[in-house]
Amino acid sequence: MANNKVKNDAITSRDVDFAKWYTDVCRKAELMDYSSVKGFIIYRPYGYALWEMIQAYMDKKFKETGHENVYMPMLIPESLLQKEADHVEGFAPECAVVTRGGLDNLEENLIIRPTSETLFCEHYAKIVNSYRDLPKLYNQWCSVVRWEKTTRPFLRGSEFLWQEGHTIHATEEEARAETMQMLDIYEETSRNLLAIPMVTGKKTEREKFAGAEETYTIEALMHDGKALQSGTSHYFGDGFAKAFGIQFLDKDNKQKYVHQTSWGVSTRLLGAIIMVHGDDNGLVLPPRVAPTQVMIIPIQQQKDGVLDKAYELEQQLKAHGIRVKVDATDKSPGWKFSEAEMRGIPLRLEVGPRDLENGQCVVAKRVNGEKITLSLDENLSQTLLQLLDDIHEEMYQKALAFRNDHITNAKTFEEFKDILNTKGGYIKLPWCGDEECEVRIKEETAATSRCIDTEAQVDGVCPICGKKAKHIVYFARAY
Amino acid sequence: MANNKVKNDAITSRDVDFAKWYTDVCRKAELMDYSSVKGFIIYRPYGYALWEMIQAYMDKKFKETGHENVYMPMLIPESLLQKEADHVEGFAPECAVVTRGGLDNLEENLIIRPTSETLFCEHYAKIVNSYRDLPKLYNQWCSVVRWEKTTRPFLRGSEFLWQEGHTIHATEEEARAETMQMLDIYEETSRNLLAIPMVTGKKTEREKFAGAEETYTIEALMHDGKALQSGTSHYFGDGFAKAFGIQFLDKDNKQKYVHQTSWGVSTRLLGAIIMVHGDDNGLVLPPRVAPTQVMIIPIQQQKDGVLDKAYELEQQLKAHGIRVKVDATDKSPGWKFSEAEMRGIPLRLEVGPRDLENGQCVVAKRVNGEKITLSLDENLSQTLLQLLDDIHEEMYQKALAFRNDHITNAKTFEEFKDILNTKGGYIKLPWCGDEECEVRIKEETAATSRCIDTEAQVDGVCPICGKKAKHIVYFARAY
Repeated sequence: MANNKVKNDAITSRDVDFAKWYTDVCRKAELMDYSSVKGFIIYRPYGYALWEMIQAYMDKKFKETGHENVYMPMLIPESLLQKEADHVEGFAPECAVVTRGGLDNLEENLIIRPTSETLFCEHYAKIVNSYRDLPKLYNQWCSVVRWEKTTRPFLRGSEFLWQEGHTIHATEEEARAETMQMLDIYEETSRNLLAIPMVTGKKTEREKFAGAEETYTIEALMHDGKALQSGTSHYFGDGFAKAFGIQFLDKDNKQKYVHQTSWGVSTRLLGAIIMVHGDDNGLVLPPRVAPTQVMIIPIQQQKDGVLDKAYELEQQLKAHGIRVKVDATDKSPGWKFSEAEMRGIPLRLEVGPRDLENGQCVVAKRVNGEKITLSLDENLSQTLLQLLDDIHEEMYQKALAFRNDHITNAKTFEEFKDILNTKGGYIKLPWCGDEECEVRIKEETAATSRCIDTEAQVDGVCPICGKKAKHIVYFARAY
Repeated sequence: MANNKVKNDAITSRDVDFAKWYTDVCRKAELMDYSSVKGFIIYRPYGYALWEMIQAYMDKKFKETGHENVYMPMLIPESLLQKEADHVEGFAPECAVVTRGGLDNLEENLIIRPTSETLFCEHYAKIVNSYRDLPKLYNQWCSVVRWEKTTRPFLRGSEFLWQEGHTIHATEEEARAETMQMLDIYEETSRNLLAIPMVTGKKTEREKFAGAEETYTIEALMHDGKALQSGTSHYFGDGFAKAFGIQFLDKDNKQKYVHQTSWGVSTRLLGAIIMVHGDDNGLVLPPRVAPTQVMIIPIQQQKDGVLDKAYELEQQLKAHGIRVKVDATDKSPGWKFSEAEMRGIPLRLEVGPRDLENGQCVVAKRVNGEKITLSLDENLSQTLLQLLDDIHEEMYQKALAFRNDHITNAKTFEEFKDILNTKGGYIKLPWCGDEECEVRIKEETAATSRCIDTEAQVDGVCPICGKKAKHIVYFARAY
């Protein structure tokens, strides 16, 4: 048993093997573990705590904007899932099917929800009669199951945790505004909580959600130059409403169909945090989402007063709202340093006998290893709070600079391929709007259209077919 | 469309048909709705908000006592569920079985978790090596599936929401202390949050959890005199540890098996709230668990200043931590009163033009209909907070008196049957400890042993067999 030695939990370097580095971090930072069913992971306390931080932040935003949480059944009758044609086509190949309940074979197979549009629609059709019943702004926190062949922790799994919002509105205008509002909330959460700058835009017809009229997306850029779709917000029009008969009597005494949205983010966001901010020593957590922001590590903790001081500091910091812990285990300080590093805890606070004499402590920043000596006085908490805020800003600016440095314009297909294979990241390309050209780019380069830049000024021609461009599109290789 | 009329949502009286009254309240208070799969209900916003209140309260308690949340997979391989003999025997008849994933038949069937002991055990066996890794104090909030033939909203469903705690410890003593600690937290939550007095005790061998060495329970008494098992805490000994090989190297350098617990409460607690406190006008919510504590209902809201005042009051109360809403819909006040009543909102605050003139408002208590006139001054929030606390105490004392009035001692089987058929409630009976006698009581009376009173002084004889009593047992008909 390694005990009073320095921990040596070396992980693969990012530049040597990024994929291996990623799974090393996932496991050694104890975010997750594999279960005995392929594609089904265990969210360990540290990984789940990260998800809880995200949940708390977003749930508050959802409620402030008038949304209510509900819980729909986990199982969907096969016939119900089939009611909207595009939708079932999109999800049928990924379904987990329950064929037996109790000791009997079921009369109708039940599908474990891959997403819950059909359940919400069926319910809405029952409970909505009048304009007075609108809007309905529901959200659900749950897990969903999509049978995947290739799986990676947090990025693609057969079961994952997420939230799915489902709203219905009296008018198209309201529903469109809701779609954009939720996209904004996603973008804002990424920026202010996760220190991740997102590219936002609209999916192409080919890449949009099964059954949606329009899909908007937030896309993050990983350290290896690949994009990660991190959240989507869909406008459904009245397609589902017609398939499920969700009608209401409007103020003008006419029966009308509702207009609908859905939107979701998942534990993929954990993957984004890891791959945007992590380094060769492990996880690096943005302070606002870090379950522990400061780890106090006593030096020579057996010496008089050291542990007492550590616990006193813990109370002092806690009182100022800092998420703080003391590592008082019987491991060596070096071992504790490594563990705190691997787990990406933003600040490490060392306090030992000599510090006590001098009335000071040493604080180390995870993000760059910088060490600062601080006085053990009544200003300590304020100084640390400011430091945490500065670190957030520093991490965001670093990620933003990296992302901006990896958005490149291309005019020709050769140029496109060249950038993709040297620098990676996003490549903005004029596009004619034909699926054929989009597919050819994917087939030849493995880069997919991430989203249409809805604010870009469109000029130039599609480099594939030479026709006049209709859109400027962000392409990238993606997870 | 009923609009400016008084709402007339009459529900069945409790005394006419308690079962019908119960489902009427569940549906008309909009706590739940049925889905198209039997036994799978929809938790509507109001019902889910109640569960969120319970979650928030308990999750805090769990974390304060050192527990961490995790998330385990939803699916369990059939062979894994079979690893502990008693456990699989208990759950096999209730399993929902996934036999297809994607487009293929599975090599091994997967069971939707009916409970997650086996998953936790498999994980613990992998991650625990040394005494330093102990204890592990994990909890999970999720839903589970148990195929039930007869279902009732919140009380018995094929899917329900719950928390399941699973802990492992180095010693039997620690694990036993954990079992009792969690029972205490359950009892305290029921008392302080839900205003429900619980009978606590130990389950008989026959009634204990499949695989447990001992099961402790909290039992609530419903208005119709039937008991409702509302939470359980299990001590497992090292039975699962041996079946799953969860060993650790102790300080004395010996390999030992861990000692284990699990404990859970579910959305059954919503059923308890409804059936303990509800009345013929609907739900009656204890203030601390009520998602909305005060409903402000403007009278003649079209008149100048009325709505403004209502919103001003809302802000004032909110600033003092009161959960408050304004009902500014275009329904009549009478309709709004009925709705607030049906939903069991503790206080209704009426404010109209005449109140504005007089600088006052009328507050009605849901629990007894009492009306109070209060000044619209800076003390209003404090007065309401005090009122809410008083209502909690009043509701708890009422429920306690009812429960105490429904605990009766019996010495003979005749006496037992007589009490059961006239008064209902709990009957305390001396019992020899033989399962045969316990079964006979159940078969002849439909009353089951709810729990052993572990603190009772035991004397007398078992009225069934005449042998010397080993325990005093609470019997009752139960949900």
